[in-house]
Amino acid sequence: MMINLLEQERIDDLHINGYQIIQNNEDFCFGIDAVLLSDFVKAKKGAKVIDLGTGTGIIPILLSAKTKAEHIYGLEIQEKSVNMARRSVQLNHLEDKIEILAGDIKEAATLMGAASFDVVVSNPPYMIASHGLNSAKESKNIARHEVLCCLEDVVSQGSKLLKEGGTFFMVHKPFRLAEIIACMIKYHLEPKRLRMVHSYVNKEPSMVLIEGRKGSASYLHIEPPLIVYSEPGQYSDEIYQIYGYEKEGMK
Amino acid sequence: MMINLLEQERIDDLHINGYQIIQNNEDFCFGIDAVLLSDFVKAKKGAKVIDLGTGTGIIPILLSAKTKAEHIYGLEIQEKSVNMARRSVQLNHLEDKIEILAGDIKEAATLMGAASFDVVVSNPPYMIASHGLNSAKESKNIARHEVLCCLEDVVSQGSKLLKEGGTFFMVHKPFRLAEIIACMIKYHLEPKRLRMVHSYVNKEPSMVLIEGRKGSASYLHIEPPLIVYSEPGQYSDEIYQIYGYEKEGMK
Repeated sequence: MMINLLEQERIDDLHINGYQIIQNNEDFCFGIDAVLLSDFVKAKKGAKVIDLGTGTGIIPILLSAKTKAEHIYGLEIQEKSVNMARRSVQLNHLEDKIEILAGDIKEAATLMGAASFDVVVSNPPYMIASHGLNSAKESKNIARHEVLCCLEDVVSQGSKLLKEGGTFFMVHKPFRLAEIIACMIKYHLEPKRLRMVHSYVNKEPSMVLIEGRKGSASYLHIEPPLIVYSEPGQYSDEIYQIYGYEKEGMK
Repeated sequence: MMINLLEQERIDDLHINGYQIIQNNEDFCFGIDAVLLSDFVKAKKGAKVIDLGTGTGIIPILLSAKTKAEHIYGLEIQEKSVNMARRSVQLNHLEDKIEILAGDIKEAATLMGAASFDVVVSNPPYMIASHGLNSAKESKNIARHEVLCCLEDVVSQGSKLLKEGGTFFMVHKPFRLAEIIACMIKYHLEPKRLRMVHSYVNKEPSMVLIEGRKGSASYLHIEPPLIVYSEPGQYSDEIYQIYGYEKEGMK
């Protein structure tokens, strides 16, 4: 299939199932957060999944390789990203499994149907809108800062989208963990599983991965820390395994 | 000074300031939780501190060595523990600094005065009353299970006892972290600092240390993990330093 690349676009290899992704050098490119979140997500065979704020479509594409989910939707508000993510879906021949939709997270349950999903995933903007908003391009601001949607929008819409007992997965910044937990409980997404990501074992966490279950009782399982580097310049074995790279490939 | 020891009581060395503590072989003896919590606590010079559910008085005694707090109160409901803790205070000549009081955590703010403390500390019962209540002796049940007070009692009374801007420190079980954070926020003790304690770096946390500040804005600082063992039978350097032992002394 012929896929048109626009100016400043490139194709990157995802090192799983031969999948590739189109990214734009001038826009927000996916980071380790999206990769670790995709690895943290559990979706049963036949599950109906939605990724809120899918950007390049990286999470639906990785989940289509890593899980047996039946249908994965990616909701994205930026038309340019929607267009690019759709071409990545075509590039990988995943049109039967992944659907990229243009729309606002704040209207997700109305657009997609309440209580109709088994799994909701999100790698949302981390930064509060007023915190150091200095990214030159508006599209990057939207991906990184809570300009168009905030934590409460993602959590409340996530809860509405989920069936009772459905699961919500998110990656976020540790400094917002108290707010995240309180917000999830407020919207009946009981935190059930949590993992901190540390660059080194003796460093503060740089990310937190969290799973909530709609309508569940309170009991949180905190997993061992995920350590990114075993030494400077050397990824840990777990990171190599998650990325699906050979050790030399990531050096 | 002559200190009477009752039957089954023993004196243990605390390896700091030459302090010692009386414990009863048949009752709940302090664990690593109390030691790590005492090390986690920050109390400024002149601070007025209270330990809710002080048991043997271990936390006030350690805090009197590790901080410049002016006056430290220990509140304890079990008369036998109150009596033993008072003798430990005398044993260490700390009567001017530490006061052990008999009383119920649920009435702490009424007993001690609302908004009158700079720091509240607690190593409360971890287990929900109905969870595997199988300890033979009632006094151990009271220390370990939420028989006489629950998490919400500790947090709500802690909040009442604190001045605005005062700090609350607690050690607890990770499986209850979501509940702890929600409860602290409910009572305006914003979680500000959190540290997970892991037996080994690749294991789930066994304890969580948390600091809240009354009336503060939301921003949580998660610290690097505290690892107890560097290898089987060998404490980590940080644990040796916290305990104040020489390496050989703990083997």
